[in-house]
Amino acid sequence: MPSLRTPKGTVDFHPHDSKLIDSILSICKRHFNLHGARSIDTPTFELLSTLTNKYGEESKLIFELSDQGGDVCALRYDLTVPFARYLAQHRVMKMRRYQIGKVFRRDQPAITKGRYREFYQCDFDICGKYVPLLADAEVIKIAVDILKEFKIGECVVRLNHRRLLEALFMKVGIESEKMNAICSAIDKLDKMKFKEVRSEMIAKGCTLEQTREIEELVGITDLEEVRRRFNEINGAYEQMRDCVEDKRSDCEITQNQKNSKDSEHEIDEKRDTCSAVHGAVAKESETVRYVQIANKAIDEIKALMEFLKTFKVHENIRFDFTLARGLDYYTGIVFEGCYTSYPDVGSVVGGGRYDNLVKRFCKNDVPCVGMSVGVLRIFSILRERETRACDTQVYVMCARTSCLAERMELVNELWENGIEAEMNMGTRSDVYEQREYARKSGIRVIVTVGGDEMSRGGVSMWTEEGEQEVKREDVIAHIIRALERR
Amino acid sequence: MPSLRTPKGTVDFHPHDSKLIDSILSICKRHFNLHGARSIDTPTFELLSTLTNKYGEESKLIFELSDQGGDVCALRYDLTVPFARYLAQHRVMKMRRYQIGKVFRRDQPAITKGRYREFYQCDFDICGKYVPLLADAEVIKIAVDILKEFKIGECVVRLNHRRLLEALFMKVGIESEKMNAICSAIDKLDKMKFKEVRSEMIAKGCTLEQTREIEELVGITDLEEVRRRFNEINGAYEQMRDCVEDKRSDCEITQNQKNSKDSEHEIDEKRDTCSAVHGAVAKESETVRYVQIANKAIDEIKALMEFLKTFKVHENIRFDFTLARGLDYYTGIVFEGCYTSYPDVGSVVGGGRYDNLVKRFCKNDVPCVGMSVGVLRIFSILRERETRACDTQVYVMCARTSCLAERMELVNELWENGIEAEMNMGTRSDVYEQREYARKSGIRVIVTVGGDEMSRGGVSMWTEEGEQEVKREDVIAHIIRALERR
Repeated sequence: MPSLRTPKGTVDFHPHDSKLIDSILSICKRHFNLHGARSIDTPTFELLSTLTNKYGEESKLIFELSDQGGDVCALRYDLTVPFARYLAQHRVMKMRRYQIGKVFRRDQPAITKGRYREFYQCDFDICGKYVPLLADAEVIKIAVDILKEFKIGECVVRLNHRRLLEALFMKVGIESEKMNAICSAIDKLDKMKFKEVRSEMIAKGCTLEQTREIEELVGITDLEEVRRRFNEINGAYEQMRDCVEDKRSDCEITQNQKNSKDSEHEIDEKRDTCSAVHGAVAKESETVRYVQIANKAIDEIKALMEFLKTFKVHENIRFDFTLARGLDYYTGIVFEGCYTSYPDVGSVVGGGRYDNLVKRFCKNDVPCVGMSVGVLRIFSILRERETRACDTQVYVMCARTSCLAERMELVNELWENGIEAEMNMGTRSDVYEQREYARKSGIRVIVTVGGDEMSRGGVSMWTEEGEQEVKREDVIAHIIRALERR
Repeated sequence: MPSLRTPKGTVDFHPHDSKLIDSILSICKRHFNLHGARSIDTPTFELLSTLTNKYGEESKLIFELSDQGGDVCALRYDLTVPFARYLAQHRVMKMRRYQIGKVFRRDQPAITKGRYREFYQCDFDICGKYVPLLADAEVIKIAVDILKEFKIGECVVRLNHRRLLEALFMKVGIESEKMNAICSAIDKLDKMKFKEVRSEMIAKGCTLEQTREIEELVGITDLEEVRRRFNEINGAYEQMRDCVEDKRSDCEITQNQKNSKDSEHEIDEKRDTCSAVHGAVAKESETVRYVQIANKAIDEIKALMEFLKTFKVHENIRFDFTLARGLDYYTGIVFEGCYTSYPDVGSVVGGGRYDNLVKRFCKNDVPCVGMSVGVLRIFSILRERETRACDTQVYVMCARTSCLAERMELVNELWENGIEAEMNMGTRSDVYEQREYARKSGIRVIVTVGGDEMSRGGVSMWTEEGEQEVKREDVIAHIIRALERR
C-alpha cells in the first residue's frame, strides 16, 4: 500500500475549509470586478528561465519539474512574474487584471501558522502610465475595502516607499548592490527583534555603526520628521559647499591653463586643490541626490495619502519606515495590511509598485502596481466561525417503507425548482440517524415520504417550527414558503 | 532576455477566455451544490507513489517534480486518484463531493482541438453503499442537466458497462491480463476507424478472428439483442453440459475409488474420461460465468435506465457497446456525453463507476461513481459566442479639464453603491478614444465630468438612448435607473 499522506507542506482542504476559501475568493473577485478588472489565467508552471533571477535570495525556494525531455520548467513562485511575462509576450501596455491561483514555494512549512508549500494567491494589478500615484491609490483602496468586508475588526495598511529606503541606505553609506539584501533583512522587523535583524544586516555587509543609524531612523513614525532629518543633513553639507565654492575658481583656472607657463610646482599645488574640490563636490552631489530622492519619495507618499482621502480610506493608512517587503522587484510604494486584533497572523494583504519588471522581459516600459490577498491567512482567522459544508436546504427522508420512486420524484421536483436537496440513498429508515445527519449538515427542512400519511396522499414535513402533514401536490409550495421565512 | 512563451502544451487564457471558463465552472458548481455536494481541495502535486500503477499505459504521461531533496512528487494526472487517496487517508465511507482544479498530462498537445498539457477538471463523485445504481443515476442526471444548461443543442450520453465488455472479452477468449489494454483500444472507436483499432488490438495480443468477433458484437445497438446473443451461446453449451453430465458419475466414481481394486488399465481409462469431463466442466462453467456477468451487467443498465426515467433525463441516454473509457480503474457503468452538433469536439463529460480504487490505498470498501466535465471542450464550443471581458457598467470620462478629484469622488460613489465602474486614469481627454474604449469593453453608460455643465453643477451622462445633462447630486440615481432599464 502506498503511504497515505500528502507531500510535505501541503494539506487537503475538507468541505468546511474549502467552502470558506471559496467564499473568501468570491468576495475578492466581487471587489475586483467592481473596479472593472479583467481576469487572466496563466499556466501553473513556467519555463524555468522565466523565473530565474527575479526573486533575489528566495530563488532557491523554486520547485523545479523533472527534465523528462522538452522544456525545462518550474512551478510558479508567485503570480506577479508570470504577469510581467504575460504583459511582455502579448505586448500589453495598459491593463487592470486579477488572477487567482495556487503558487508554490519550497519553504520550511508551518501549517498551523498558515505557511504552506502550496497556497492560493489572489492578485490585482494595474499596469500602464497614468496620473502618478492614482493607480497606487486605487489598489490600496481595494485592499482596504476587501479587508473591511470580512468584518474581522480594525484593519491597518502600513505603507512605505522603496526609494525612501534607498535614500536611507545611501545616507548611511551602504553600496547599492547590497541594498536588496538589506531590504529583505529590514522587512523581517515585524516578526523579529532589531537585535536579530541587526545580526542579519551585519552578515549581509553592514557595519555596526550603519545598523545603529538605520535603527534610529526607521523608528521615526512621522513622515515630516523623516523629511526634516534628511534635509538637516543636507543643511550641514551646504556649509561645506560654500567652502568648496571658494576654491572652485582655482580649480577651474587649473583646468584652463594646463598648457600655460606656470611652474611645475604651482601646477601640482593647484592639481591637489582641484582633486580635493572634485572629491568634495562628488560627495556633496551624492548627498544632494539622496536628499532629493528622499524628498521625492515623501512627496509621493503625501500625494498618495491625499488620493486615499478622496477614496475615503485614509483612516486605515499609516506610514511605516520599517516596511520593506521581501521581494527584489519593488521600485516605489510598498504596503502591507493586517488586522490589529490578530498580530500573530501577520499581514493579510501586501503589494507595491514594480516599474521595471516588464523591462526584464522586453523593451516596453510598462509600470505596474499591484497587491496580493493572503487568502489562507484570512482563512486561518475566519475558520473559527461556524460555516456550513454544503448548501442543502431539504432532506428527503426514508420512512418505514422504502418508496424509492416516490422519493426520487420529490427530490427531482425540488431540483427542478432550484432548491438544493438531497435524499436518503439507502433503504434503511432509522429516523434518528437521518435527522442527525440533517442536523449536522445544517439542513432545516426534512420531508418524509412513505409513512401513514402516504395512504392519505400526504407527506410529512419537518421544520424548526414543528412537524406537519401536507398534501403531496402542495409540498413544494410549502417548502418554498418555509425557506422564505428564514 | 528570457524566451517569451509558455511551456509546450500550455497557454495563457486572456480576459474573455478566462471569464468564459469562470462562467462554465460557476454553472457546474451551481448544479453540484443543488445536489448537496461538498467541495474539497487536494494538493496540485501528490507523492509519486500515490499515482503509480493507477493509470495503466497512460502512466508514462505523468509530470514528475525534480528531486530537490525530500518527498518524490508528481503533478496530479486527474482528480479521481487523489480523491481515492483522500477517502482512504481520512477514512471517509460516504461522501458526495466535487472538486475543480487543474490536472497535468505530458501528452502530445493539440491546442486548436482543445488538448492541453494542463487543463481544468471539474469532478463530481458519490461514494458509499446505497441502493444499487441510484448514485450512478444521480451522477448521470447531473451530467445531462449541466450539458443542457449551456444551450448548445441536443446532447446525448452514451453508456456501457465495463463488466459487459469483460464478458465479451471472455467470450472471444481474451486473457484477463490483456483486457485493460484491449479496453483502451476499443475506447478509441469514436475517433478512429475499426481498421486502425484492429491493428492496435492485434498489437496488444488479439487474434484476427477475435477482433472480427468483437467488431460484430460491439456493433449491436439494442441491449436485448446483446443479451440474446450471449444467451444463445449459453444455449449451445447447454447441450454439451447434458452430454458431460452422463459421464460425470463415472468420474466421481473414479475419485472415490482411487484405492479400490480396479486394474491399472481400468483406472487409466476412467482417469482420461475424468480429465475430459473436468475440462468440459471448466469450459462450461467459464461460459456460464461470462453469460451470468453479461446478464447481470445488462440488468444493471436496465435498472439505471429506469432511474433515469424517474429523473426525467432518459431521452438523452443511449446504450453504446463500443464505449469503454481509457482508464483502468472503472468497474461498472461507464458513460460519455457529447453535443450532436459538435462531433469533432468529442465527449464533453465522462465518468463511471470505480468500486476498487479506494482499496488500492486501504482496506475500506468504498464503492464510488463519478464524472468529470470537460470544461475546456465546452469552452472551445462557447468561445465563438460574444462575451464581455469585464463587468464594468459605468465609465467616468475626462473632459477638456482634468477635474481629477471630482472624477475620483464620482467613481468612489459608484463603487459604494455596488456599481461596477472605471474612470479614465490619465489626464488626456480625447473623447473619441475614450468612447471607443468604453464601446469595446461593452460599457453602456458614460459619465463626463468637467465640461461646461460643471459650472452649472451638472455632469453629462451618455447611454444608448442619447446624451443628457443631469445634476451632479442626482447622477447616481439616474445611473441606477438607466442600468435597471436594460
